[in-house]
Amino acid sequence: MEKKFILGVDLGATNLRVALFDLGCGIKKKDSFSTVDFRNKEDLIRAIVCGANSIIERSGLERKNILGLGLGVPGPVDVKKGIIHFLPNIPGWRQVRIKKILQERLGMPVSLDNDAKLMCLAEYKLGQARGFKNALCLTLGTGVGGGLVLGGRLYRGADNAAGEIGHIPINGKGPRCNCGGIACLESYIGNHRIMHRAAGVFKRRISLEELSALAKKQNKKALRIWREAAGNLGIALSGVVNLLNLDAIVIGGGVSASGRILFDTVRQTIKRRAMSVQAKRVKVFKTKLGNDAGLIGAAILVKEGRNIL
Amino acid sequence: MEKKFILGVDLGATNLRVALFDLGCGIKKKDSFSTVDFRNKEDLIRAIVCGANSIIERSGLERKNILGLGLGVPGPVDVKKGIIHFLPNIPGWRQVRIKKILQERLGMPVSLDNDAKLMCLAEYKLGQARGFKNALCLTLGTGVGGGLVLGGRLYRGADNAAGEIGHIPINGKGPRCNCGGIACLESYIGNHRIMHRAAGVFKRRISLEELSALAKKQNKKALRIWREAAGNLGIALSGVVNLLNLDAIVIGGGVSASGRILFDTVRQTIKRRAMSVQAKRVKVFKTKLGNDAGLIGAAILVKEGRNIL
Repeated sequence: MEKKFILGVDLGATNLRVALFDLGCGIKKKDSFSTVDFRNKEDLIRAIVCGANSIIERSGLERKNILGLGLGVPGPVDVKKGIIHFLPNIPGWRQVRIKKILQERLGMPVSLDNDAKLMCLAEYKLGQARGFKNALCLTLGTGVGGGLVLGGRLYRGADNAAGEIGHIPINGKGPRCNCGGIACLESYIGNHRIMHRAAGVFKRRISLEELSALAKKQNKKALRIWREAAGNLGIALSGVVNLLNLDAIVIGGGVSASGRILFDTVRQTIKRRAMSVQAKRVKVFKTKLGNDAGLIGAAILVKEGRNIL
Repeated sequence: MEKKFILGVDLGATNLRVALFDLGCGIKKKDSFSTVDFRNKEDLIRAIVCGANSIIERSGLERKNILGLGLGVPGPVDVKKGIIHFLPNIPGWRQVRIKKILQERLGMPVSLDNDAKLMCLAEYKLGQARGFKNALCLTLGTGVGGGLVLGGRLYRGADNAAGEIGHIPINGKGPRCNCGGIACLESYIGNHRIMHRAAGVFKRRISLEELSALAKKQNKKALRIWREAAGNLGIALSGVVNLLNLDAIVIGGGVSASGRILFDTVRQTIKRRAMSVQAKRVKVFKTKLGNDAGLIGAAILVKEGRNIL
């Protein structure tokens, strides 16, 4: 029998990544392009098509060897119709029938989903949430994205818009969020917010990497900033844990690289604030699949197909 | 064929209620006893047994006409083993194998669940959440209880402890809650808290009923108290709606009798604070089944049996 492969594409606000997978969803080859190089929607679509064709050819494969292409995008989508509603951080995408467009240009089945949901799917099937039937996976970056597996299935909600852990209010009053809400978690722990806070404390510009490095060296100011951020994350997670009685929480994204101080504080906050049964049950992990989680989720989407839509 | 019936029992901190149902889960006969009349656990168990036997006899039925008994209790339970872990508001119940005890004394199958989950089940199957696949049902009383239907199924979480909407923190800092948490929703909108607030504003003791009546007459002080309470509820619900992208929220319990001011304020708060897709989707309803929701849910539990465990 002919050997089959899967293509996974992760369209991010910073990078477009294309990978070739075997049927076990292991990565065979991976390319990355800077998204800002593509000036408009048509450029970006062409880049996906070229990236897919290029990786097939360079691997000595043909179209018939490819089971399908899975695409993760940073915004709300209609998974059944294959439509991107819009992309908050990539201008020019409104109601794009991307599934139809890519299927026509590539001549293979295309599946589409939101990137945070694909990350969650990947951590559940092959990563840190494996074996846990009720899990929240979240990514801490410029925004705070999330996905839920409940009862062993990816949970989408009524409009495929579930998982917005970044937009849980953690105070009655507070800063106005980009989403229009007030005092959303994201407006306390988005990376711009953390860097802004750090600049105030250190009286100079300081990168997230440096702030993490300082915390690892036990710098008191850096530790305080991370403790504040993680404490706020812990407040939101305490509510989620009480509501959903989760088995596992998996945390990824750039901000999670801050290390132990973040995870320890989150765990302590949940232990202190959540109800005893729920707090005792839930385990808080760092992502196992890291930056590849979205790509791997895209491959799983193709492999499992309709079962998970 | 012999006609079959179901027994439903709702064990509350205030009342013990026993009802006879037809197989369509319609109530045929209903009794109510004051729970405080029973001084201890054994008294209360005997009251359930007597109540069940009495309603069977008075209806001219025999044991063989009864499909089973469903029991809802105000606390955490193990539905599979049929054990009550404890009842926060009824002393003396710890790890009680109530299913086994009642089956032996009554000679019929007994099913058990938490009352908030049964209310949610009832509203989903026969009440206001019918036809909505993703719904939260909550009861506002001394405590704030809740149940979730997600993807068309009762969602239990890892330890059957999901649904604790009353213990979502709505502020970083705030009052210590009975559950051990900080600034939980329940410590802002539990009925004791609302009455305490009202006594402060009106400079006298005032009942919840009077406070509702005053609000309906547009009394400004009463309206302000309800608006505050409903606003706090709306904050917690905005987070839940963003996270779960729900179709429906059904609100019951004594506090919900305050009427339009509560519902209008909750709807406005969600519209103002939740994300646009999620806010547009969710509908907020008043309970359709009211005080009978828990009883009806207990009957449904018997009828649907293992399918919903």
